[in-house]
Amino acid sequence: MREALTIQGCVVEVLATEESLGRHPGIATTARDGGIEIVPCDDRAIASLSGSVNPQGLVAVCRFVDVPLQEALAPGAQLIVVAGHVRDPGNAGTLVRCADAAGADAVVFAGSSVDPYNDKAVRASVGSLFHLPVVVGTPVPEAIAALKQAGFLVLAADVGGSSTLDQILDDGRLAGRVAWLFGNEAWGLSAGELTLVDDVVVVPIYGRAESLNVATAAAVCLYTTKRAQRGPATQEG
Amino acid sequence: MREALTIQGCVVEVLATEESLGRHPGIATTARDGGIEIVPCDDRAIASLSGSVNPQGLVAVCRFVDVPLQEALAPGAQLIVVAGHVRDPGNAGTLVRCADAAGADAVVFAGSSVDPYNDKAVRASVGSLFHLPVVVGTPVPEAIAALKQAGFLVLAADVGGSSTLDQILDDGRLAGRVAWLFGNEAWGLSAGELTLVDDVVVVPIYGRAESLNVATAAAVCLYTTKRAQRGPATQEG
Repeated sequence: MREALTIQGCVVEVLATEESLGRHPGIATTARDGGIEIVPCDDRAIASLSGSVNPQGLVAVCRFVDVPLQEALAPGAQLIVVAGHVRDPGNAGTLVRCADAAGADAVVFAGSSVDPYNDKAVRASVGSLFHLPVVVGTPVPEAIAALKQAGFLVLAADVGGSSTLDQILDDGRLAGRVAWLFGNEAWGLSAGELTLVDDVVVVPIYGRAESLNVATAAAVCLYTTKRAQRGPATQEG
Repeated sequence: MREALTIQGCVVEVLATEESLGRHPGIATTARDGGIEIVPCDDRAIASLSGSVNPQGLVAVCRFVDVPLQEALAPGAQLIVVAGHVRDPGNAGTLVRCADAAGADAVVFAGSSVDPYNDKAVRASVGSLFHLPVVVGTPVPEAIAALKQAGFLVLAADVGGSSTLDQILDDGRLAGRVAWLFGNEAWGLSAGELTLVDDVVVVPIYGRAESLNVATAAAVCLYTTKRAQRGPATQEG
């Protein structure tokens, strides 16, 4: 909720039990300072609204925070994450958290991806949904075309990839504007979609696991890219 | 189950519905070839045993597969993962899957870590629990001491780390025998435990996320280490 309150105009009202406001005085102050109404509620009302097993006694009613695709591809953006048909809300939220941590500039929920406003997705993002621009409802081919048009190298992460992550790193291809496309948990991306990207890249499996899950694969791809974009670390002590 | 059946002596018996054996003829054949008894069961019995919401109609009764710590530190081992007080079974299983994918040689469940035989942990490992040696029940200080004794550089991943992952990579310190220690999801590692390791390392957070979850942080640390240990990729394509 603190994250949502930092975005001007995002929170419409806060529903809260008296007890929870006592535990989180900062939230009450921030809301009142922002002219946001605090509506007193009892535990049952909060429980029915929050969808959580252990509600915190506070619910913020927020406006949608997603932005148009073109806004997410603003000139300063260097690293974009595209979720293509990512269906599990926990994976979707963790992907946003991971993109935020790795310094990605936006996350595009494309194709049949789960709604990032799903309560489980919001919780799994641990506030990151409010940290970076999110785009929803774009077909995968349209997202790929717009990214290419904007000069991004569009890479699909797929177990059947023809290049390994190490190879494209060594080739120096990760240093410019890069967009990573991650597919569905079970079936990945369609053959047609894979023909549209600049390269299909596999995160190497050194052991006997069949694959990584989408969030861990994304963590490896995004951190590898960010490091290539930043160049070798300087000793800052 | 296929993974368990590949380990000699691991599966004691297979409980199965007739319908599931029809769907998975390979499992029935492998079990019979290995002299493993197949016990016919009905759906209710399987459901009560499997703990899953959608049981597959097959349950393998397995022996424990964990090994003593010294066996996991065998001379060929280059990369070891230590879970220190990792409590969530899903995280524990995903950590094993991730360690397997990144080519780690063993996973040590130390301190108050969850039992890796927990049904949710086993499922989250997607078979990887049977792919690499697992050690259970070692106190964290004892695991650190044994790893140092065996010549491993012992690194704790912690948000309060004094070195960044990029720094120790650039310093060339990841090329030898490396063990990574990951702490509890909420409170990390104790101050006392952090004094015992060779270095406390933070995975850099480039955005505004507070942290990565344990599996995604591990993915980044382990893949970075494996790449350093292997050296630059050769073009095999």
